[in-house]
Amino acid sequence: MDPIERLIIAFERFPGIGPRQARRFVSFLLSQNNAARNDIADSIRALGSATATCSRCHRWFLKNTGVGSTCAVCADPKRDAGVLMVVEKEADIDNVERGGYRGLYFVLGGTAPLAEEHPEKYIRMRELFSRVESDIAAGALKEIILGLSATTEGDHTRLLLHEELRPRIETNSVVVSTLGRGLSTGSELEYADPETIAQALQGRK
Amino acid sequence: MDPIERLIIAFERFPGIGPRQARRFVSFLLSQNNAARNDIADSIRALGSATATCSRCHRWFLKNTGVGSTCAVCADPKRDAGVLMVVEKEADIDNVERGGYRGLYFVLGGTAPLAEEHPEKYIRMRELFSRVESDIAAGALKEIILGLSATTEGDHTRLLLHEELRPRIETNSVVVSTLGRGLSTGSELEYADPETIAQALQGRK
Amino acid sequence: MDPIERLIIAFERFPGIGPRQARRFVSFLLSQNNAARNDIADSIRALGSATATCSRCHRWFLKNTGVGSTCAVCADPKRDAGVLMVVEKEADIDNVERGGYRGLYFVLGGTAPLAEEHPEKYIRMRELFSRVESDIAAGALKEIILGLSATTEGDHTRLLLHEELRPRIETNSVVVSTLGRGLSTGSELEYADPETIAQALQGRK
Amino acid sequence: MDPIERLIIAFERFPGIGPRQARRFVSFLLSQNNAARNDIADSIRALGSATATCSRCHRWFLKNTGVGSTCAVCADPKRDAGVLMVVEKEADIDNVERGGYRGLYFVLGGTAPLAEEHPEKYIRMRELFSRVESDIAAGALKEIILGLSATTEGDHTRLLLHEELRPRIETNSVVVSTLGRGLSTGSELEYADPETIAQALQGRK
Repeated sequence: MDPIERLIIAFERFPGIGPRQARRFVSFLLSQNNAARNDIADSIRALGSATATCSRCHRWFLKNTGVGSTCAVCADPKRDAGVLMVVEKEADIDNVERGGYRGLYFVLGGTAPLAEEHPEKYIRMRELFSRVESDIAAGALKEIILGLSATTEGDHTRLLLHEELRPRIETNSVVVSTLGRGLSTGSELEYADPETIAQALQGRK
Repeated sequence: MDPIERLIIAFERFPGIGPRQARRFVSFLLSQNNAARNDIADSIRALGSATATCSRCHRWFLKNTGVGSTCAVCADPKRDAGVLMVVEKEADIDNVERGGYRGLYFVLGGTAPLAEEHPEKYIRMRELFSRVESDIAAGALKEIILGLSATTEGDHTRLLLHEELRPRIETNSVVVSTLGRGLSTGSELEYADPETIAQALQGRK
Repeated sequence: MDPIERLIIAFERFPGIGPRQARRFVSFLLSQNNAARNDIADSIRALGSATATCSRCHRWFLKNTGVGSTCAVCADPKRDAGVLMVVEKEADIDNVERGGYRGLYFVLGGTAPLAEEHPEKYIRMRELFSRVESDIAAGALKEIILGLSATTEGDHTRLLLHEELRPRIETNSVVVSTLGRGLSTGSELEYADPETIAQALQGRK
Repeated sequence: MDPIERLIIAFERFPGIGPRQARRFVSFLLSQNNAARNDIADSIRALGSATATCSRCHRWFLKNTGVGSTCAVCADPKRDAGVLMVVEKEADIDNVERGGYRGLYFVLGGTAPLAEEHPEKYIRMRELFSRVESDIAAGALKEIILGLSATTEGDHTRLLLHEELRPRIETNSVVVSTLGRGLSTGSELEYADPETIAQALQGRK
């Protein structure tokens, strides 16, 4: 297969990109000079050697920003080691940081499919449990926040993790919490769905 | 002015309708026969005599569905008279009902403009305070829920009412609460705005 | 049925309006005072007595703008009586006028359904043919422009009328023409569909 | 700068990609393994050596699909060498091919900016003129189609090329044509803009 076809297929796998835009990307690259193209190719190639997966939270990070096999957040002694937020993916961390969270993270790598007997094949459950156990052993952990999306898959994963985490933490004083549900900023009461209304009522204060 | 121009201007004031669609509405009415047009005209005319404003919650209701000057909800003895939800407009009530709320309502008639010294010209503040006072005198009221939208105007109105209600309820055991804020159903953590994240964190449980 | 329900059903039949917006329209009307509501009702009622259908082009018009049973355009001696444009509906006329057309019109009242043996039940075919015959008898007609939309139904109606009109005009010097097809203003070559490209190529000049 | 930042900046320059999606692309690449990333990098790098710019129409093409320095279309003896279509960019060619065009092409490389004294710095004007001259000398050229978009920039470029080409072809029997303008497939008369209506009227047949 020629490089144009190979690239169209590769770009079609990029998030949110269809065949037409994949083709436009290749046209765009062809309209660039060799130096610009090689610079992109070199950067893509360098991702592998410049990044690593954090041994604690399992996110990827730039090697020169972390400490050994640990990312900057996990290595930061000023973060609150008593709170561990379980998130689906790296991009969630950026957003939670903007919300002012100062605890630590664990990246699941996705959500558990709805009718799947072996969710551990899809999300880092075993890695999460061993992380929680070692944190408990270290005496620091006070709360695990299940920072999952308010979607069907997120809800399913939340219930699953709740059930699995409870026996592992019950003899300790660790609590498992979930993010508050209700009206999100900017939403009008008239257009909120019934479930959100019910949760906003339940979570009133 | 001819009836076509008068109607275009009237339809342009309908919620969400621009000049083009107002014109299409008139074209549509012109394509109907006289009987169909007169039926619509009669129904619009009948709204006034068939409906009334509830003396307790200030929503409009069909006279034959209420009890005297009171709407069906306010007249229903099975509703929880201990909880009063203050909402912006009638349409909010339909939605809150779908969320399973079983208390009573008060319709403000809008939100307070941001830089306005006389908000009572825009929302039924005086009517709300006298309603609250009579409810307190009747001994039933336990909680006032400020059921306002999570918008800038909603937040402003919430603060304003909170401030004004406090001195009126402080010697009693009435509490003022607000709807829970956080992730609304279906929203993903990655795309939630920082304020919603902050409130979801604050409201975790 | 109460006037609120009757109106919701009526508004749902307005072009582009769904159940939710129909309900909002009624809420809006209920929030108005009696005088405003009665004004709208009167205007709707007046549409019937204030308007008439033009005996020549079949569009509706305000009686006080026309001359007897004829609308202002059909009665205007400065319009070019040699050109007759057949359009689907009244709203098309407004748009064609903006394009600078100075001939006369005939309103079909829609398009012919695709697999329908009696298209004359859906569009004013008989009225069109008798209009064309009387125009030919009067000696004025030189061209009939089929001003139909570039849609499947428009194309079907165009073919149908072409076929039916030909025997009626062939012994005279009247021509039947159709609107030019090609790139519409603002469209980019890259995104034009193949048929438009083919027609733009065919119609190049 | 690290490869992540370099790539985000590079992806932001891709057509239609903003900062958020550029970031998601990098996250996606980081979630791939080294082999997948290297495959993309190799393909991008190979674009330069696998493609060339056609010496006749100035489009890029895969070296193994053309004949020497000429792309497959320019080298195809079955194409009609009497017709030359001037297009803005490569992607236009794919679309024009779908419309059934069988002549040859010339890729301008863009449109001329509106208030620019030196348009030749933006589009291949000199290359176009020398191509036209050599085609005329070869005795084949009969028509130049200005296949530009129906946009302001396209119209401007069309006028500019028309003016510049006329003195170069007037002593020969070569004509300069432009693509037909009018209703594009699927468009309704009611919503067509006045200019399109005017051109559809002008181009009727």
